[in-house]
Amino acid sequence: MPSDAIDFWFTTGSTYTYLTVQRLPALAAASGVRFNWRPFAARTIMREQNNVPFAGKPVKTAYMWRDLERRAAMHGLPAKVPVPYPLKEYDLAHRVAVLGLAEGWGIPYIQASYRRWFVDGQAIGEEPNLSQSLKEAGQDPARCIERSAGDDVGEIYDAATAEARERGIFGSPTFSVGNELFWGDDRLEDALSWYRHGKVVR
Amino acid sequence: MPSDAIDFWFTTGSTYTYLTVQRLPALAAASGVRFNWRPFAARTIMREQNNVPFAGKPVKTAYMWRDLERRAAMHGLPAKVPVPYPLKEYDLAHRVAVLGLAEGWGIPYIQASYRRWFVDGQAIGEEPNLSQSLKEAGQDPARCIERSAGDDVGEIYDAATAEARERGIFGSPTFSVGNELFWGDDRLEDALSWYRHGKVVR
Repeated sequence: MPSDAIDFWFTTGSTYTYLTVQRLPALAAASGVRFNWRPFAARTIMREQNNVPFAGKPVKTAYMWRDLERRAAMHGLPAKVPVPYPLKEYDLAHRVAVLGLAEGWGIPYIQASYRRWFVDGQAIGEEPNLSQSLKEAGQDPARCIERSAGDDVGEIYDAATAEARERGIFGSPTFSVGNELFWGDDRLEDALSWYRHGKVVR
Repeated sequence: MPSDAIDFWFTTGSTYTYLTVQRLPALAAASGVRFNWRPFAARTIMREQNNVPFAGKPVKTAYMWRDLERRAAMHGLPAKVPVPYPLKEYDLAHRVAVLGLAEGWGIPYIQASYRRWFVDGQAIGEEPNLSQSLKEAGQDPARCIERSAGDDVGEIYDAATAEARERGIFGSPTFSVGNELFWGDDRLEDALSWYRHGKVVR
């Protein structure tokens, strides 16, 4: 099935998604491939599937931070790990991202919010991260926060989660090329390869 | 901490470990890096840590098979997925691997047993895989199966599991370079990079 874009399914509560959010715009520009940013409630789907990657697993969690730190360095990204996790204002963070993507300022907002999370240790969806990242994206925080509570925003968010569930997506980040799924920032190059060649090549 | 080798911690019940087992000897030869094959009871550690990657998770499991199939193709390896999983004779499979590595025929045996699992659909540790893979490695099956039940084999296996636990290893395959851990076949190149450069480079 030919595709004219790669769908980037993500949740801003995901740690490894930091890498994707920061490197995707440059990669899209360099490759000429269009990426559709699709925020969805990964946490909801993971709960439904009893898929608990880190909570209550200190050994695996410690590894995750170290692996993320090393791979951030590989991509030239700063990362002061561990950061506050899990996010408390998960749904608000996503509603603002949905609004921003609908209004055209989503990507710079999401990038700014992730940078504050991983460089300054400020949780996404909470102050001061929320207002400062919105301002950095040229937006009025009060308007955006109020507007993000709208039913239309919730409907887009819920529809994306339903579509992700239907597609068999279970975590963030996931890249979909037609019906092929690629889970994890470390599969971004695989997805790009599939988009171009219909197979994964090194 | 300088190292003169990379430790390859693995369990033959792991699916992704198929990729590592088949590609490691050529990679070791090409790179000149020595790899110590260290079988351990990953399943025991995962149970202790309530780390259940696939059992009861059909959506994630379906993804795993597809991802494994694609990456096997990327490495030029055949893979008729899904294969029988989980293994029933997990401990026997490992005891034979421990014996083989101690006696010098472990790597060809493990490669043969994985090939029968992923190409012929025959579970590791069960017949006909067990005897045929031992014969392919030039061994007498009856002798090896009896010998693998020895206390000395169990002691090596238990000591490796204890060392893995102590090091913070929680899954297979894991590569350790000094105190740095790299989990997953898709981190093999990261481990090699760390061994050579003390950091992960693309």
